[in-house]
Amino acid sequence: MREVAVIGIGQTKIDEHWDKSLKELAGEAIIDAMKDANRDYADAVYVGNMMSGSANHQQHLGSLIADWVGLRYIEAMKVESACSSGAAAFRAGLMAVASGQLECVIVSSVEKMTDSTMAEITTELATAADADYESGMGISFVALNALIMKRYMHEYGWKKEDFAPFAINAHANAVNNPKARFQYPINLETYLNAGMICPPINLMDASPIGDGAAAAVLVPLAAVNRNGRPIIKVAGSAGATDSIGVHHRKEPLFLKSAELSSKQAYQQAGLTPEDIDFFELHDAFSIMAALSLEASGFAEKGQGPRLANDGTIFPSGKLPISTRGGLKARGHPVGATGLYQITEVVQQLRGEAGGNQLDDVKIGMAQNIGGSGSNIITHILRKE
Amino acid sequence: MREVAVIGIGQTKIDEHWDKSLKELAGEAIIDAMKDANRDYADAVYVGNMMSGSANHQQHLGSLIADWVGLRYIEAMKVESACSSGAAAFRAGLMAVASGQLECVIVSSVEKMTDSTMAEITTELATAADADYESGMGISFVALNALIMKRYMHEYGWKKEDFAPFAINAHANAVNNPKARFQYPINLETYLNAGMICPPINLMDASPIGDGAAAAVLVPLAAVNRNGRPIIKVAGSAGATDSIGVHHRKEPLFLKSAELSSKQAYQQAGLTPEDIDFFELHDAFSIMAALSLEASGFAEKGQGPRLANDGTIFPSGKLPISTRGGLKARGHPVGATGLYQITEVVQQLRGEAGGNQLDDVKIGMAQNIGGSGSNIITHILRKE
Repeated sequence: MREVAVIGIGQTKIDEHWDKSLKELAGEAIIDAMKDANRDYADAVYVGNMMSGSANHQQHLGSLIADWVGLRYIEAMKVESACSSGAAAFRAGLMAVASGQLECVIVSSVEKMTDSTMAEITTELATAADADYESGMGISFVALNALIMKRYMHEYGWKKEDFAPFAINAHANAVNNPKARFQYPINLETYLNAGMICPPINLMDASPIGDGAAAAVLVPLAAVNRNGRPIIKVAGSAGATDSIGVHHRKEPLFLKSAELSSKQAYQQAGLTPEDIDFFELHDAFSIMAALSLEASGFAEKGQGPRLANDGTIFPSGKLPISTRGGLKARGHPVGATGLYQITEVVQQLRGEAGGNQLDDVKIGMAQNIGGSGSNIITHILRKE
Repeated sequence: MREVAVIGIGQTKIDEHWDKSLKELAGEAIIDAMKDANRDYADAVYVGNMMSGSANHQQHLGSLIADWVGLRYIEAMKVESACSSGAAAFRAGLMAVASGQLECVIVSSVEKMTDSTMAEITTELATAADADYESGMGISFVALNALIMKRYMHEYGWKKEDFAPFAINAHANAVNNPKARFQYPINLETYLNAGMICPPINLMDASPIGDGAAAAVLVPLAAVNRNGRPIIKVAGSAGATDSIGVHHRKEPLFLKSAELSSKQAYQQAGLTPEDIDFFELHDAFSIMAALSLEASGFAEKGQGPRLANDGTIFPSGKLPISTRGGLKARGHPVGATGLYQITEVVQQLRGEAGGNQLDDVKIGMAQNIGGSGSNIITHILRKE
């Protein structure tokens, strides 16, 4: 397998983009990534997206977006795995370049959610769950996560306020990220007084939807011109699933698919959790941040919140997470999120993370969760 | 790039499957393919599908189907490129194995269309066109193809009955295919008297929708045990796009993306059109069969119908097409079709095509068209 590097990245701000269509958002991020890569051509564009068919009445995003950005005639397809569609598209692009079939792939991810009503979007998001046994019974995504969080608090004895540092860290980091949706800090009081959505999940435990697009340009590592910039190599990449229904899992409080995909990624990269300098995890809900830390080898089962409360996850800690705001404050345009995470890892490794820049980071990890933990994709990127 | 072989195939009958859900259909084809491959495990399942999010209120088909067939924990994703989703999923699986990342990938494709009303399905299909300039203006897929066919007849002087042999050949071949939706023959009279849908396209120029699923198992060529069966190698694979809107094309009567993807596939396989023994093309409409033959190097521009009228495309001809009924008579469950085509090529190369078996075939080609020619994927398979 030939090695692959990321040579260009692009992101739009995550927002309510009333003035831009789905394809305009995708195009903006792609053109930024191509400029960043100093390329005006690619062999293919793979687009990560979850809900364009129903939310935007447009499928066939591969062809649509290749055409829109002026790359007519290249190969194109859309890749979907619910909220982990962005990382899935990156993985498809990675394998296309690694296989030797293609020399340059643009990976794009886009979601435009705010044109729909809240009722529509809640229904769209529920298509990531089991239609027969979850969404068909009326349970929403927030409710599924609330059940997990409630049981977790009961099993391991954590209190509501123990989850506050996840949201506080995310919001503090988003202040310095011009692409983040919520660029303001919160404190413990904000967290504890936030409106309840579905107990124990309140507004500060839940990430916001949004419109946004990210993009990355992938080429063989051997084809990269350094040009004074660090080379960013994809050192590990793996995906794994668990049952789509939470109730079918052997351990509903453990993300087996995160454990499996992170272990494979560590193995490919020849690394252990100890070697990871920072971690862009999938804090769609604060409970998911805790579970992701545990399953990826950073904490024992039931001990994820400890890393939030002892400062480990803050920029000054041993394992900073959500360094540009995470899903909680940067925002969570579902099918686009995975590529925001990966492009944020690239920003940190290149030293381009502005007010969020971490000191002396060489290895970053991104983990994207689809559904309530049923499809988890882990990537490790390394500065060469 | 390591070479890849198809070691197992499966198909459901294409029908109105009122008694089976989307995941049951997909599971049936996958389990058949795994039995055929004599495997009970795989590293991943990639699912080709176009419209499950809106037609079946279920996204996240990768996780759903991996779980349903008892392959929980493996990698999974959905791949979409409108009507060419099946071939796109195959291509993604091919690259995953070719890259060395995975050792065994199940490629699955499924579509369940008949639970929806005709009005709903017409709207779903229109999401493959340009929402701003085509479907947004009220034009349907049949109407787009009718405009192309009308102009083609005007430019090149073909009469309506000149397209009849495409439908007659497809229906004659479907008689011997137990998985085909329409297992009955038609004649010139049937063709000429068929109800008009959108002039000049009548019912016999248009393929039917349907519910169905196909599957294939991919492994490295080097890992195949012959076990007395022919080895089926993927010799060429490529995808290309054209503008999503037909009106934006330089030559609306020429499938540029078919030319580009077939040329790449020929080059990879070290072959020319002369070497292709039979061709499973995308006869969603009879005009598309003609255009596909021309762009893939089998006829000059405007001369596709000649191959239908001189007998070339019939089983006894030099280049049999739609050998198991094609989209016209086997049926066209849109996102699943591409994998029906590829698995039919495997059937012919293995000598398992029953009453449709062609004599002495070694090299078969499949071409899957997404949208009105905006995303075309070509595969060449070869018996070793």
